[in-house]
Amino acid sequence: MMQKLVAEFMGTFLLVFLGSGAVLLAQGNALTIALGFGLAITVSAYAFGGISGGHFNPAVTTAMVINGRTPALEGLMYVIAQIIGAIAASACVRVATSALKLPASQMAQTDFPKISVGAAFFVEALVTFLFLMVILAVTADRIGNPDFAGLTIGVTLALLILFALNLTGGSLNPARSIGPALFAGGSALKHLWLYIVAPEVGAIVAAFAARFLLDTEG
Amino acid sequence: MMQKLVAEFMGTFLLVFLGSGAVLLAQGNALTIALGFGLAITVSAYAFGGISGGHFNPAVTTAMVINGRTPALEGLMYVIAQIIGAIAASACVRVATSALKLPASQMAQTDFPKISVGAAFFVEALVTFLFLMVILAVTADRIGNPDFAGLTIGVTLALLILFALNLTGGSLNPARSIGPALFAGGSALKHLWLYIVAPEVGAIVAAFAARFLLDTEG
Amino acid sequence: MMQKLVAEFMGTFLLVFLGSGAVLLAQGNALTIALGFGLAITVSAYAFGGISGGHFNPAVTTAMVINGRTPALEGLMYVIAQIIGAIAASACVRVATSALKLPASQMAQTDFPKISVGAAFFVEALVTFLFLMVILAVTADRIGNPDFAGLTIGVTLALLILFALNLTGGSLNPARSIGPALFAGGSALKHLWLYIVAPEVGAIVAAFAARFLLDTEG
Amino acid sequence: MMQKLVAEFMGTFLLVFLGSGAVLLAQGNALTIALGFGLAITVSAYAFGGISGGHFNPAVTTAMVINGRTPALEGLMYVIAQIIGAIAASACVRVATSALKLPASQMAQTDFPKISVGAAFFVEALVTFLFLMVILAVTADRIGNPDFAGLTIGVTLALLILFALNLTGGSLNPARSIGPALFAGGSALKHLWLYIVAPEVGAIVAAFAARFLLDTEG
Repeated sequence: MMQKLVAEFMGTFLLVFLGSGAVLLAQGNALTIALGFGLAITVSAYAFGGISGGHFNPAVTTAMVINGRTPALEGLMYVIAQIIGAIAASACVRVATSALKLPASQMAQTDFPKISVGAAFFVEALVTFLFLMVILAVTADRIGNPDFAGLTIGVTLALLILFALNLTGGSLNPARSIGPALFAGGSALKHLWLYIVAPEVGAIVAAFAARFLLDTEG
Repeated sequence: MMQKLVAEFMGTFLLVFLGSGAVLLAQGNALTIALGFGLAITVSAYAFGGISGGHFNPAVTTAMVINGRTPALEGLMYVIAQIIGAIAASACVRVATSALKLPASQMAQTDFPKISVGAAFFVEALVTFLFLMVILAVTADRIGNPDFAGLTIGVTLALLILFALNLTGGSLNPARSIGPALFAGGSALKHLWLYIVAPEVGAIVAAFAARFLLDTEG
Repeated sequence: MMQKLVAEFMGTFLLVFLGSGAVLLAQGNALTIALGFGLAITVSAYAFGGISGGHFNPAVTTAMVINGRTPALEGLMYVIAQIIGAIAASACVRVATSALKLPASQMAQTDFPKISVGAAFFVEALVTFLFLMVILAVTADRIGNPDFAGLTIGVTLALLILFALNLTGGSLNPARSIGPALFAGGSALKHLWLYIVAPEVGAIVAAFAARFLLDTEG
Repeated sequence: MMQKLVAEFMGTFLLVFLGSGAVLLAQGNALTIALGFGLAITVSAYAFGGISGGHFNPAVTTAMVINGRTPALEGLMYVIAQIIGAIAASACVRVATSALKLPASQMAQTDFPKISVGAAFFVEALVTFLFLMVILAVTADRIGNPDFAGLTIGVTLALLILFALNLTGGSLNPARSIGPALFAGGSALKHLWLYIVAPEVGAIVAAFAARFLLDTEG
């Protein structure tokens, strides 16, 4: 179990660390940022997925628990490891950005300055729903593609972030929002609840939709 | 069959949803837009291709029916699911763009403002012909590469869109043009016939060329 | 044999067609152009490589003939099919660019306006040598990676073009230079000999280096 | 053994040659540079990894020796071949840049003009630690993904360079820094010790962390 939790820690660490780097340090355009987060999941899935299953996201773990692929207690411990990994990554990003004398409020945090809270909730729930539909299908025993699952999931995340980036920042992952928000504070911390609840709602709906509409749990 | 139609709906939804996001929300350059559409097909093929075969495009379904890989009635139902998926995706894009207060006429629709109708027809038919030649070869039983088919098809679409983007918008897919055109109206709706007929012509020619020149149906 | 020649025609067509599109129609940056040419080889290798072996380049065919992987007569016919494919692609590019009223001298041809003829020869021979070393190793029976050969070869081409683009245009392929030069004329046609001889020299050296230094033909 | 050393030479040559090209000749943005270095490792791993194991980096060889995957003497010879490969690549880059009349001090060397030496050491050690954690996991016998190891390792390097580029240049590899520094001289040569020591420290820590926390050597 220790080994599995280290794997979940490492994958979530890499997601936040590399994605934040693409935002803050590479001053990336939308494609670079989307690939920074998305491909971090791809490489973590191939490197550490063989150990833990490669969730790296509390919303993914929720869907896996609902569909009986992960035991509930193990899922709870995964979520804790993911959140600790995200916070540790944001701490490292803080060190790097302070070395560059970037403002302390810049932590690649997620927020929705241009749209309403209702629209932001809809967007985060919708893109997380789509993300989980892909994940549950590509990892399904009978109809999936296990070899290409890591590539598929990471590229899907990149494309969904490309869609959501200018709307909500494109989190799809409570841990990914918790880490930066704790360091950035302000509006990102005040809106953090949305980045926890909306992805979880999207994931829960996807768990049932995949089971009954796509028959992924057969 | 229900499961197959959901898979075709999901894949076509993702194509239009993610490609439109790259155009409108990420304000992407040509490479970002091409990858937005192309890689959406790649991830959908790996996630949902095991269920339905992964057409996500009425022109692809036409070629598969002609070459006897898909029964005609099933093909017809696929096309309906694809068109519904594209329209649903454009509806979601409309919600997102209206949240950002983008003009209602911006829906990532396809049109050809710089070239003649004859040139536009030639371009859409040619790139769809090339697309289908690649699809029919890479998915052929004896000579194909089933593991890499999803990657090959999606990257091919991306490259062909890169070619056609400034000429016709690079549709290669009647469903991909129908969804946005219904919401955008205007010239895109008036020219919609071309984005239905030209890709189908390219696909029909490719079906015969692949069978007799490449021997893909052996 | 007919089927093999069609495959070589198609792959070389796609290389010149899609690469030229990235240069001329997408007004791509260096990364886009490099990926346009490189990934065209990747998708052609997975789609048509199962038929012909996927050379799409007279210099590659030369090395394969030298190392006994392709019979000489078959190699000669491959080269003819490749050159015809490149010319056909440039003809299609000409139609597309004339529809956009681009100057007739813009055909994504290769030339070396900034460097000397000696430096250009060195660069084209060197990058083609490196290209063939990768190709001969990744496709070698005992030590290669056949599943990932298409991806490896295409990405290698993209990276080598990224290196050579501002020096020589990054051809590495006589057919890729012949097609556009015939339509563009001028300096590109006058320098065409270099883009035929230098890649062939690089390929011939690589054929022997791979055999004796890497033991790829064991 | 000769064959293995040629493979290590070739892979390290390609890393420095193609990465430097992305920096200097393609005048790449951060994404292009990161992909230039990262994907060079991917293609070298698939092409030459079957011969030598595909280290191309003294820090990687150090970790492999510590964890008993590579004999110490073989590791030493690998490191020598890697350094020679990097120097040879920088010599070729020098020829290309002098043909373009670029300043002799521009060799894609690594340095840290914006941050302190302590911060630079921390960054290089941290990103190399993360790099080795991914490498050791993805290549582990029981839990790894050998087929996707080349893709995973190269993309991970690209993402870590994206993080470190504006801090330290993102070396993670003593050989990659030695080659350019010898030609560029100046500050890069004065700071070269850091790009040798810090990656080795990160790799040594990762070797033990992977063994005891991830159980990769089981």
